[in-house]
Amino acid sequence: MSFTTKLNEIWKTNNSLVCVGLDPDLKKLPESLKNHKEPIFEFNRQIIDQTHDLVCAYKPQMAYYAGQNALDQLLRTIEYLKTNYPKIPVILDAKRGDIGPTAQMYGKEAFDIFKADALTVNPYMGTDSLLPLLEREDKGIIILCRTSNSGAFDFQTKKVGEHFLYEEVAHLASSKWNKFNNVSLVVGATATDEIQRVRNIVGNMPLLVPGIGAQGGNLKNTINFGIDKNKTGLIINSSRAIIYASNDANFAKKAKEATKELKDKINELRFN
Amino acid sequence: MSFTTKLNEIWKTNNSLVCVGLDPDLKKLPESLKNHKEPIFEFNRQIIDQTHDLVCAYKPQMAYYAGQNALDQLLRTIEYLKTNYPKIPVILDAKRGDIGPTAQMYGKEAFDIFKADALTVNPYMGTDSLLPLLEREDKGIIILCRTSNSGAFDFQTKKVGEHFLYEEVAHLASSKWNKFNNVSLVVGATATDEIQRVRNIVGNMPLLVPGIGAQGGNLKNTINFGIDKNKTGLIINSSRAIIYASNDANFAKKAKEATKELKDKINELRFN
Repeated sequence: MSFTTKLNEIWKTNNSLVCVGLDPDLKKLPESLKNHKEPIFEFNRQIIDQTHDLVCAYKPQMAYYAGQNALDQLLRTIEYLKTNYPKIPVILDAKRGDIGPTAQMYGKEAFDIFKADALTVNPYMGTDSLLPLLEREDKGIIILCRTSNSGAFDFQTKKVGEHFLYEEVAHLASSKWNKFNNVSLVVGATATDEIQRVRNIVGNMPLLVPGIGAQGGNLKNTINFGIDKNKTGLIINSSRAIIYASNDANFAKKAKEATKELKDKINELRFN
Repeated sequence: MSFTTKLNEIWKTNNSLVCVGLDPDLKKLPESLKNHKEPIFEFNRQIIDQTHDLVCAYKPQMAYYAGQNALDQLLRTIEYLKTNYPKIPVILDAKRGDIGPTAQMYGKEAFDIFKADALTVNPYMGTDSLLPLLEREDKGIIILCRTSNSGAFDFQTKKVGEHFLYEEVAHLASSKWNKFNNVSLVVGATATDEIQRVRNIVGNMPLLVPGIGAQGGNLKNTINFGIDKNKTGLIINSSRAIIYASNDANFAKKAKEATKELKDKINELRFN
């Protein structure tokens, strides 16, 4: 089943726009897991088991696995999801981007080796760097547009002719890159005016929204300006506030509570 | 020894600006290696042994290893280089880019796990996404500026106020990001006007230049406009034209000839 279809179904069945970011830092894992043979996988597994009916996606951050010699545990995590919760889409957050033949190899990494349903990518190198990924029709290609960090002001919010640079990305995404209806955009919750502008450009295209929680994004405006006509259209990511909700052996239950709280808050805002 | 020092020394001792791109595609390897236990490593090893005194760097393209389940052979390749030819800098071409704590993890991947001397990175997310990498003072941070592909026209060559976007990147690289003298920029040989403009902005900063050979870049203008006051300053990459110079068992000798030919052509142009 394609990423787009999966996403549309899970938005309904789980009635949730929450995406849990699986960014496990070995230094921050609960003591109870420190002697585990696969501490990162076990950490993820417990969180997944507690939250699977409250989310619309999981988003493992590739760098945490690659930088901690734990790519095997990323593989195990995604296998575990595919086996036990196959209806939940997995977004591999790797922000790849390179010329054609190389981009194709990154597609193999994300979709054939790690079996992700979607991949985040960087648009700086332009159309031909995205094509080999966009052609993976059943996979989601989630393109950085207006990111949630302070560095977004260096280039993304600069005026390029009539539009801001991030708007140029949104225009191309909407007019040129979405032939297979598999494109989404990243727009940070720290920039809710921009969420509104992007939503106006891209119609019902899904938006992946980081930046609530630790980064201080405004949830109310994110929902008001970001939801589409079906009151969905958003994948609202939370990582640290959920996975580190507690540092004790009960971390997974606390993660569940934090996920439920966020889900409910979002639903209250979007159905009001 | 820092990347910058290594690079300055090897430019002199090997009297070469040639960087060999190690982008091994299993489908294109010589028949003679098809039954080898580690075909990619063996391919690289033979090319390295034949070319080590003709180059200023090796640049493995991460995607080819990640996408072909061959990260162990990338590790072996870099270990082999460090053991046998420790004076030659290794540039890991991975074009990473993410928010602070994540960027730090990518630094661990590139520099602590794979032991690269330098990493290519994508500037789209701005200053705070680069800082954790720039702080790795002895490592080279090679930032995409004006890439060699057609997609460069989508954003990089657009006017942002007075300057082109790629010039904005060069200005920030020069004025703000190079505190530890460890920054380089990627500027494609397909855009020699841009090489000249970037050289004027960044002084003696090294430029990594892809796009000669298969992509049709202009070598003469690249040298004329790109070399710095010391007649160095360029890392001119060639991948396919060298590593696939022959498809026979003699591929490594042919790679050597192709490397020497390019080295000589460059030296004729820069010392004329």
